[in-house]
Amino acid sequence: MPASKCIVLAERPTKDIDPARTFRQETREVGDPGEGEVLVKVMWLSLDPAMRGWLNDKRSYLPPVQIGETMRSGGLGVVAKAGEGVKLAVGDAVQCTPGWTEYAVLKAASCTKIILPPGTQVLDYLNTLGSPGMTAYFGLKDVGKLKAGEKLLVSGAAGAVGSLVCQLGVSMGAQVYAIAGQQEKCEWLEKELGVVKGLNYKAPDFRQQLKSIGYIDVYFDNVGGEILDMVLLQLNMHARIPFCGSISGYNGKPRPLQNYPNIIAMRATLQGFIVFDYAKQYEAARKELAEGLSSGAIKRKFHIVEGLEKCPEAVTMLFSGGNTGKLVVKVADVDETQARL
Amino acid sequence: MPASKCIVLAERPTKDIDPARTFRQETREVGDPGEGEVLVKVMWLSLDPAMRGWLNDKRSYLPPVQIGETMRSGGLGVVAKAGEGVKLAVGDAVQCTPGWTEYAVLKAASCTKIILPPGTQVLDYLNTLGSPGMTAYFGLKDVGKLKAGEKLLVSGAAGAVGSLVCQLGVSMGAQVYAIAGQQEKCEWLEKELGVVKGLNYKAPDFRQQLKSIGYIDVYFDNVGGEILDMVLLQLNMHARIPFCGSISGYNGKPRPLQNYPNIIAMRATLQGFIVFDYAKQYEAARKELAEGLSSGAIKRKFHIVEGLEKCPEAVTMLFSGGNTGKLVVKVADVDETQARL
Repeated sequence: MPASKCIVLAERPTKDIDPARTFRQETREVGDPGEGEVLVKVMWLSLDPAMRGWLNDKRSYLPPVQIGETMRSGGLGVVAKAGEGVKLAVGDAVQCTPGWTEYAVLKAASCTKIILPPGTQVLDYLNTLGSPGMTAYFGLKDVGKLKAGEKLLVSGAAGAVGSLVCQLGVSMGAQVYAIAGQQEKCEWLEKELGVVKGLNYKAPDFRQQLKSIGYIDVYFDNVGGEILDMVLLQLNMHARIPFCGSISGYNGKPRPLQNYPNIIAMRATLQGFIVFDYAKQYEAARKELAEGLSSGAIKRKFHIVEGLEKCPEAVTMLFSGGNTGKLVVKVADVDETQARL
Repeated sequence: MPASKCIVLAERPTKDIDPARTFRQETREVGDPGEGEVLVKVMWLSLDPAMRGWLNDKRSYLPPVQIGETMRSGGLGVVAKAGEGVKLAVGDAVQCTPGWTEYAVLKAASCTKIILPPGTQVLDYLNTLGSPGMTAYFGLKDVGKLKAGEKLLVSGAAGAVGSLVCQLGVSMGAQVYAIAGQQEKCEWLEKELGVVKGLNYKAPDFRQQLKSIGYIDVYFDNVGGEILDMVLLQLNMHARIPFCGSISGYNGKPRPLQNYPNIIAMRATLQGFIVFDYAKQYEAARKELAEGLSSGAIKRKFHIVEGLEKCPEAVTMLFSGGNTGKLVVKVADVDETQARL
């Protein structure tokens, strides 16, 4: 069995991730897959803001990653060896949660075989057809209950989830406003994704810009903190806030909210959600999103970093605003003779 | 026409209401009721925490009371004179919004004729059968979606809304925990209303007491602030927070929330609501609550203050914890020969 490079949690960060201290690289022997298991060779890893939360030793929707444990991570791989009683075959491409590693033994039941709809590519399974896509889809439709003609505001709009929320909002007939942290991101959101206006939260007149868009029906929030607090004063009656992430506070204490009593006056709803709860409805959503990709109606952008060892450094980009679009790490080239893609 | 004593807003408070500065008493001539109007002689006034919000000059669910304007207030009165085209008759008892005054000319359409179900009393129309009752009922059932066996926590539990929420919770088969600010209130909640435990938020070990009750499914919140922030760390999965009031912050800056990101991890919902939105469903709720009053299943307590001129002083009790149960002001004795009760 191959020896596998992997990156493990060395020390829990109290604030920002320090790539050199928070993680360390190791080489570990990977065992043979047992009954119901597969050995997966990792091709791609997905880096997501939620990872920061998994490093904290506290109660959440998933258990914390333990010190010395391989860092949890979604990814795509190829089945290199299949144990007893497994339907997957060697060479099958799968979506799975291998962690930051070259090889992983995983329960076959936790791996989803990738069957590419026409007009899509394998990486879409970490983005539009994967967790970010499902998060955007169910957050906006089920939690946000967006209706045509409403005003939608999206934070973290140039990220994987946000950029899809923007596009879904436009396609649903909403007036979409998008918050990002760079002028180029704002321009991309306006010109490529069709939002009414991109708002740069680092601009000195951001507060004024935000006020000028008027009352908001749906605020799809990825960041929490100060921006959420401002938006709380700008809610329309019966506004909905699908509360998807609170990135601004992941690396330390979240900035407190002062204006929350306005939630009462405006009969607004701040609703947290975790995409896993919608797993039974993924297939229908994936079908719809795949059609959008295939027709070109849905655009996506990848920010690709090469090499497993780059994971610790790359993940910090999600908090500094370094990426536009979905951040992924290429771990290995696919051997096309092996992978059934 | 009678000259009417009334209490008007003199100055907007920035923090606590100062009875002597915030309001002043005047005597005003009251005109004759015009077409579609009635002249109402006020018997009772309702004092509610929401009144503090009406004094602020900012966008909310009702326009602010203006300087020099009679203080807005719900109440009960008797029709003393009826204008043209009005179905109400002289002597009819009505629930209305007369303001802090002895007499008021009101639109007849804004007055509800009181027909007392058996086993109820006229004051119930300011409490269990009025806005507090409707607030408790729809907040708990429609917003909170409480189910049998769940854990319900109620803040402001000894108040008009809170004490009914506790009782409805018990009758729906929930485990009910109630927060109040005095030991006697806690004992009343336990012994009379049947909650599992009353928690005194002024007790030095309150935080520990709160922790000891475990994870909460529904938090019916009347107070916001520090207690809400503590509870955010103690939410069960898919917890609902019917956000009814934020009394702790009405007299100044609300204490900020720090722990709101937990709303995401727990897939919780913080939902503001205003009872007026349920007006079309009041009748059915009132019928159910009247049955509870009639059978003795629902208990109520009134804190009665006598005299219109006491309103400014009395309203401050709602923020200092001075009242147990529904706070009302008796403005005039009912002339039983006039009132059809």
